[in-house]
Amino acid sequence: MNPDPELLKEAWQHRKEHPQSIYDRSGVWRFRDLLHFYPDNKDLSQILVSMDGEEGRTKPFMLSKVAEYVGLKSNNFYLQFEGDNPTGSFKDNGMAAGFTHAKMVNANKVACASTGNTSSSMAAFAANEGDINAYVFMGSGRISIGKLAQTLEYGANAIQILGDFDDAMKTVQAVSKEMGIYLLNSLNAYRLEGQKTIIYRLLEGLKWEVPDLVVCPGGNLGNTSAFGKALTEPYKWGFIDKLPRIVVVNANGANTLDRIYNEEKIRWSYTDDLWNDKIKEFYTKLDEENFKAHTIASAIEIGKPINLPKALRALYETKGMVVSVSDQEILDAKAIVGRNGFGCEPASAASVAGIKKLTEEGIIDKDTFAVGILTGHQLKDPKATIEYHKSSANKFANPPIEVPNDIDKILEALRK
Amino acid sequence: MNPDPELLKEAWQHRKEHPQSIYDRSGVWRFRDLLHFYPDNKDLSQILVSMDGEEGRTKPFMLSKVAEYVGLKSNNFYLQFEGDNPTGSFKDNGMAAGFTHAKMVNANKVACASTGNTSSSMAAFAANEGDINAYVFMGSGRISIGKLAQTLEYGANAIQILGDFDDAMKTVQAVSKEMGIYLLNSLNAYRLEGQKTIIYRLLEGLKWEVPDLVVCPGGNLGNTSAFGKALTEPYKWGFIDKLPRIVVVNANGANTLDRIYNEEKIRWSYTDDLWNDKIKEFYTKLDEENFKAHTIASAIEIGKPINLPKALRALYETKGMVVSVSDQEILDAKAIVGRNGFGCEPASAASVAGIKKLTEEGIIDKDTFAVGILTGHQLKDPKATIEYHKSSANKFANPPIEVPNDIDKILEALRK
Repeated sequence: MNPDPELLKEAWQHRKEHPQSIYDRSGVWRFRDLLHFYPDNKDLSQILVSMDGEEGRTKPFMLSKVAEYVGLKSNNFYLQFEGDNPTGSFKDNGMAAGFTHAKMVNANKVACASTGNTSSSMAAFAANEGDINAYVFMGSGRISIGKLAQTLEYGANAIQILGDFDDAMKTVQAVSKEMGIYLLNSLNAYRLEGQKTIIYRLLEGLKWEVPDLVVCPGGNLGNTSAFGKALTEPYKWGFIDKLPRIVVVNANGANTLDRIYNEEKIRWSYTDDLWNDKIKEFYTKLDEENFKAHTIASAIEIGKPINLPKALRALYETKGMVVSVSDQEILDAKAIVGRNGFGCEPASAASVAGIKKLTEEGIIDKDTFAVGILTGHQLKDPKATIEYHKSSANKFANPPIEVPNDIDKILEALRK
Repeated sequence: MNPDPELLKEAWQHRKEHPQSIYDRSGVWRFRDLLHFYPDNKDLSQILVSMDGEEGRTKPFMLSKVAEYVGLKSNNFYLQFEGDNPTGSFKDNGMAAGFTHAKMVNANKVACASTGNTSSSMAAFAANEGDINAYVFMGSGRISIGKLAQTLEYGANAIQILGDFDDAMKTVQAVSKEMGIYLLNSLNAYRLEGQKTIIYRLLEGLKWEVPDLVVCPGGNLGNTSAFGKALTEPYKWGFIDKLPRIVVVNANGANTLDRIYNEEKIRWSYTDDLWNDKIKEFYTKLDEENFKAHTIASAIEIGKPINLPKALRALYETKGMVVSVSDQEILDAKAIVGRNGFGCEPASAASVAGIKKLTEEGIIDKDTFAVGILTGHQLKDPKATIEYHKSSANKFANPPIEVPNDIDKILEALRK
């Protein structure tokens, strides 16, 4: 039997206003009716994993300066700031669900490959649980300072491989299989179940009015996959009366999905597997080109997205679009988010830069109703921010001024 | 007429559960009945400043590993994580109130001296308001990378003085007076009004059961002053039936309050001003010693705390204590907070290190009921974290291991 939309919307609202437990307070488990992979004949506290109910407590915000920047009307444009999660990124949504399944199968070791946000989240959940060891595989040098700090501080075993994220991803799969470690990368289907709640909160925050576009950065494509499921299921069940189009934004230097979707024109199909063969061919081509992903947006610096098949399905079902943006466009967009009093890491700003690209190219008009997802906290990568603002070559640079310790000279400098 | 405790507690709870506006949602303005410096004959949205209701949405948490570390029973020990504010520190509590007053007096320029958290918060509020220019005075080189990134990104005018925080503090007062800029340092009484709500949420989170100790790091002593007021007022009005003792924790390298309180034994007095003269004498002595504050906990690296008089009053009224801890004790305590799945910046961990010192020295016993305030987010200062974990000389170091891109060698390393 399909879930009843009106009853559930009321239940979710009620849990939010009168939480009876941390599972009602959690922005993930509040929607547990649609994440139903666990037995419900037991006490929830014996089953569900949560960071004291703190994960997923986000909602969409209007940001007028950013709206103006991307060329949309300010009441038709929202950003949902998933950096406002316990470990500073959207990953906490999925980890709550992934750890729940890990505990269901009695895992005492978990692992992931990570550009940094996944590892921070996994390490924090493992520390919270107390009896689970975390193993993190990272490419060397391509993890932001904030994310490395978190991963070490939460006590995970951090393994830096002399290679990039794609190497780490290959390694973690082999090592986990060999050593019987529970794998918590986004190919873990339960993690994607948790990430569906990003969309539920977005729709709830819009009072179930459906936007035209849902825009997110494209890295390993876990969000794209989760968002596809989170939209098509409620559509089928009557929670919403239309489907928004998913827009995935790649960085120019890590644009595998863009190439596959827009150049190779590979599309998902229910009836044959030819598309999957074409992806494999394309990946072989990438190897022959010796392609290495490279972008300032380290969270999406991924050459071979592990969720590519599921993401293609999400794009197929929502008539989605894929665009790429330059590092400069990403950093400019990031600065505007800051000027609006918010803040995000570089990868997140790809959402904003992507929407701007769509309006500039006339693909969408100013009346389009768009919601972008900001995936990670500004403080995850302070180096990128400081470098941007210190260089006056950047359009929205805001360099500090240095003055001697002399009040007259300071007044003189300020009055200029 | 005094406020009615039971009616107000109910009103605060109701606003939290059924917010009618962002001012009910805000963890500062939800308690507006006790922050009554604005006219209430107008629409709240014309008067109050808020970051969309996001500031001050914190509460105390139990952290069992930290409890064990400090030597208290885990159900008698809480930490309130003020890093979970929009700009990552407790400062957002006070800025909401300070900006409200700035707008009441039609200020279009605001300024502060800052070790980084105040400037981040002030810059973000200014960006949110849109029509207020922010001027930030910083000592050179002694601001953490995260805080500098935020201040620049939110678009504040950042002025780096060739000097330390105490120089910046002196400068900002002179410049603001000269140029007619509204001063938003913690000597601003309205900011302290906002910071009172840290205590209201703490008490509410404990269901108005009063702890024996409230412990906070001591820098410019704005929190100490605000906490004193936030405790003594409700005690007088019957919200609580006893007063907790305030414990202020200095870093050894920035221990002015400790010296004044424990060595010089200077105490607040209602009847004379001698104590104030003694402070001035002591400050002269500091100048003669050419004393410069120095600690890894940059947020409390302050030699001449601007709120010292008010803080002495808070200590007097709550029979408070002052202790100092070393940078090593601070960093070890910080690592334990991380192992518990939380995270904080170095200054915050002084709260934890201070409680540990009190139990070790037998000043408090294991049954003491203590709440510590973690003032800032872990990601504010990732450098300190990484340096700690990379050095195996540190007790709780968790260095990353480097391995070649070779699965057999990685398995070998992991099985060791």
